[in-house]
Amino acid sequence: MEPSTPPLGDMSPDEFRRHAHRLVDWIADYLHHNDHYPVLSRVKPGDIARQLPSAAPERGEPFDRVLDDFERTIVPGLTHWNHPGFFAYFAITGSAPGVLGEFLSAALNVQAMLWRTSPAATELEEVALGWLRQLVGLPPDFEGVIYDTASIASLHALAAAREEAVPQVRREGLAGRDLPRMRVYCSEHAHSSIDKAVMMLGLGHESLRRLPSDREFRMDVAALRQAVAEDRRAGVRPIAAVATVGTTSTTSIDPVPAIAELCEREHLWLHVDAAYAGVAAMVPGYEHILAGADRAQSLVVNPHKWLFTPFDLSAFFCRRMDTIRQAFSLTPEYLRNSEAGQVRNLMDTGVQLGRRFRALKLWMILRHFGAEGLRARLGEHMRLARLFAEWVRNDPEFELLAPVPFSVVCFRAKPVGMPENDLDRYNESLLEKLNASGEVFLSHTKLNGVLTLRLAIGHIRTEERHVRRAWDLMHELA
Amino acid sequence: MEPSTPPLGDMSPDEFRRHAHRLVDWIADYLHHNDHYPVLSRVKPGDIARQLPSAAPERGEPFDRVLDDFERTIVPGLTHWNHPGFFAYFAITGSAPGVLGEFLSAALNVQAMLWRTSPAATELEEVALGWLRQLVGLPPDFEGVIYDTASIASLHALAAAREEAVPQVRREGLAGRDLPRMRVYCSEHAHSSIDKAVMMLGLGHESLRRLPSDREFRMDVAALRQAVAEDRRAGVRPIAAVATVGTTSTTSIDPVPAIAELCEREHLWLHVDAAYAGVAAMVPGYEHILAGADRAQSLVVNPHKWLFTPFDLSAFFCRRMDTIRQAFSLTPEYLRNSEAGQVRNLMDTGVQLGRRFRALKLWMILRHFGAEGLRARLGEHMRLARLFAEWVRNDPEFELLAPVPFSVVCFRAKPVGMPENDLDRYNESLLEKLNASGEVFLSHTKLNGVLTLRLAIGHIRTEERHVRRAWDLMHELA
Repeated sequence: MEPSTPPLGDMSPDEFRRHAHRLVDWIADYLHHNDHYPVLSRVKPGDIARQLPSAAPERGEPFDRVLDDFERTIVPGLTHWNHPGFFAYFAITGSAPGVLGEFLSAALNVQAMLWRTSPAATELEEVALGWLRQLVGLPPDFEGVIYDTASIASLHALAAAREEAVPQVRREGLAGRDLPRMRVYCSEHAHSSIDKAVMMLGLGHESLRRLPSDREFRMDVAALRQAVAEDRRAGVRPIAAVATVGTTSTTSIDPVPAIAELCEREHLWLHVDAAYAGVAAMVPGYEHILAGADRAQSLVVNPHKWLFTPFDLSAFFCRRMDTIRQAFSLTPEYLRNSEAGQVRNLMDTGVQLGRRFRALKLWMILRHFGAEGLRARLGEHMRLARLFAEWVRNDPEFELLAPVPFSVVCFRAKPVGMPENDLDRYNESLLEKLNASGEVFLSHTKLNGVLTLRLAIGHIRTEERHVRRAWDLMHELA
Repeated sequence: MEPSTPPLGDMSPDEFRRHAHRLVDWIADYLHHNDHYPVLSRVKPGDIARQLPSAAPERGEPFDRVLDDFERTIVPGLTHWNHPGFFAYFAITGSAPGVLGEFLSAALNVQAMLWRTSPAATELEEVALGWLRQLVGLPPDFEGVIYDTASIASLHALAAAREEAVPQVRREGLAGRDLPRMRVYCSEHAHSSIDKAVMMLGLGHESLRRLPSDREFRMDVAALRQAVAEDRRAGVRPIAAVATVGTTSTTSIDPVPAIAELCEREHLWLHVDAAYAGVAAMVPGYEHILAGADRAQSLVVNPHKWLFTPFDLSAFFCRRMDTIRQAFSLTPEYLRNSEAGQVRNLMDTGVQLGRRFRALKLWMILRHFGAEGLRARLGEHMRLARLFAEWVRNDPEFELLAPVPFSVVCFRAKPVGMPENDLDRYNESLLEKLNASGEVFLSHTKLNGVLTLRLAIGHIRTEERHVRRAWDLMHELA
């Protein structure tokens, strides 16, 4: 061998230990002082890419140098989702026990596609989802499986609806057959993943009918009833409805019991998108938010949104998981094995064959915080949101634009005497100034055509003083 | 407040530091001594679940106790994908720089859905995929995006084929329209994810036509040509072909140049599934394996398979990414922002809205090992496979059942004088004994109806002595 031949194998154990300990200290400091960075990155498009070479290095580089470059080049280009002033979209948290679980899971690198490819990964997924199911009050006839995102979970839910509605769809598909157009219903406030799901499934975007909502942004069930009747008369086949518990804009709650009743009568698959708010059902006094969900066919709740779990981990619960299996299970020869029939092979419940050991972090979070600790943290976020809403309500220069059922506040500044026509521009400019401050990051939506600011509380390190600071900043910058 | 109220916030920084350092040492030992565990878990169905409580703890528990339970309860239920004797399916590696990248990415917990939700995540994805693209020799007109799995990458590729073939499919879907049946082609050795993709897309399983392969398990292009002609005559609309570079059973290479020529002539979308073997194109002497791929519309290669990247990271390269965007991009109000038009928002290239910062680990791996180091490691795996194949070829009691283009060997034991009828049972029993040894884990396939053992080399710590040990074990247990 030539002396220049690069060594084989991995980083040496000593080297790994040294770099990993360095990284632990960096991460500990980062998580502790995460408010030292501007929350919204200040770089301009292209700033990061411009600093990086256009080709991979020929020779390997010491890992210290890679970490140095990470700090120098990458960190300024991060928007800090761990910043306690992150109030945009849905604020999320990768909590310490979750981050450690993910670290361990990456090191193990096991696959949960078959039971035998790591029995503990399959069985811990069942156990941890069982715990979560009980915490949010769903009955045991809901079987659970972990997907990466709610987008994929809802895609599978609607695939199951299609499977039940169209005989032989798995084998024969939808084209070139004498099939009616189909319809899926949701409110105007449902998530865009529902649109993407009907497109992917070949149902077409027109198959999604978005129903109007009431003054509190909840699906109008009378409109749903009318739409179903209209569609049936027109020869369109209703197959599913998606009810949302915690819509993206205002976190409103669709009237699931009434929707469930209609779906039962009309034989529609009912999917409940509780991606953000479902976890709140574990908080005393909030059990009602999932009322009626026990009559749904499926429900998705995302621990990676508001249960302190590093992205990604979406929990899908289904009363007819066999329909999902009927739609997708398929075992090529090389995956056949002697446990068939005795075990669940999780690859049968979806299109993705490879599956990470995601249950590990969820188990660690549930154990380390305990049910009590999780309830307390969720309750605190809702208390902070109510507090902020109270400040808005009592300030003549601000206006609350939606009820606050959970931890998101929809509002706008409304300087006394400013004409309605100028308010959108005024609030847009206020939002830009707030986000340029580096101290907070908020996002917006439109409600009844009006530009609406959203303050979303969900980070585990967000305290009352951070919410107070956001409020003060609004006055300083308004 | 009552004294029993649980504290809020995350684990304290000191606690995090302590547990994380403990975990680093555990992981360092684990990775170093990963051959101390039986590679295939020996637990029985239900063994792990039985040891776990049926409900989440009410009170939070110290993290030390959780880690203790992990070691005691979970570890015995793991199948060790990091064991150097893991030769099943495709052997994969979460290398040290990749594991550290994943740890960091979990701690940052940033989303790469919009450019602004972390500019560095979007730009590093572009840069790292550019590096990978050049390493495997694809031209710059291929735009890259990271998905979780090849299943999802191929699903998007076939969605794009459908988008180009069926006007208005996004809006109107496939049902209730005057559309012909459609056809997608692949060889009998293509991956099951292609089946699942056509099912998901509403094309139906019948839309997939699996063509016979030649004696070396490569798609028969004459059969493809004939199938396309037959289908056109029958009024079925050919829309796409999937060529595989490195099939799952034997790692055979479909004749991509001839398939590409046919696809161009017939206006079919050509998707190349190079999930496992694509990375080998960076090894001198192996450039030809992706010959013709520059004429494909899309290609998938999985760094999480054979580029030492912890699961999941699937790289999708596409010459018509605008078709994917046309099929799926959709921006709800709350995600609109002022950078629109100046930046790529990665959520536009798929159905999943949330996206982890996966590029970080790939960048760290490419830099730490360097192009030279990656080539050396891939080359060594292929050398070990050729060596093992040589032993098989020279042993009268064994038989090689397929060519060895990469790092997987297909073979069987064939004791002199044993009737052909008994060989399947004999090899099945040999496989069971090998896997029960705890020293190695192999899987099987069927080739021409014959039970075939597969030795798949792909772990970064697998050395010649491990391959030699597998070979010796086969003789001890045969």
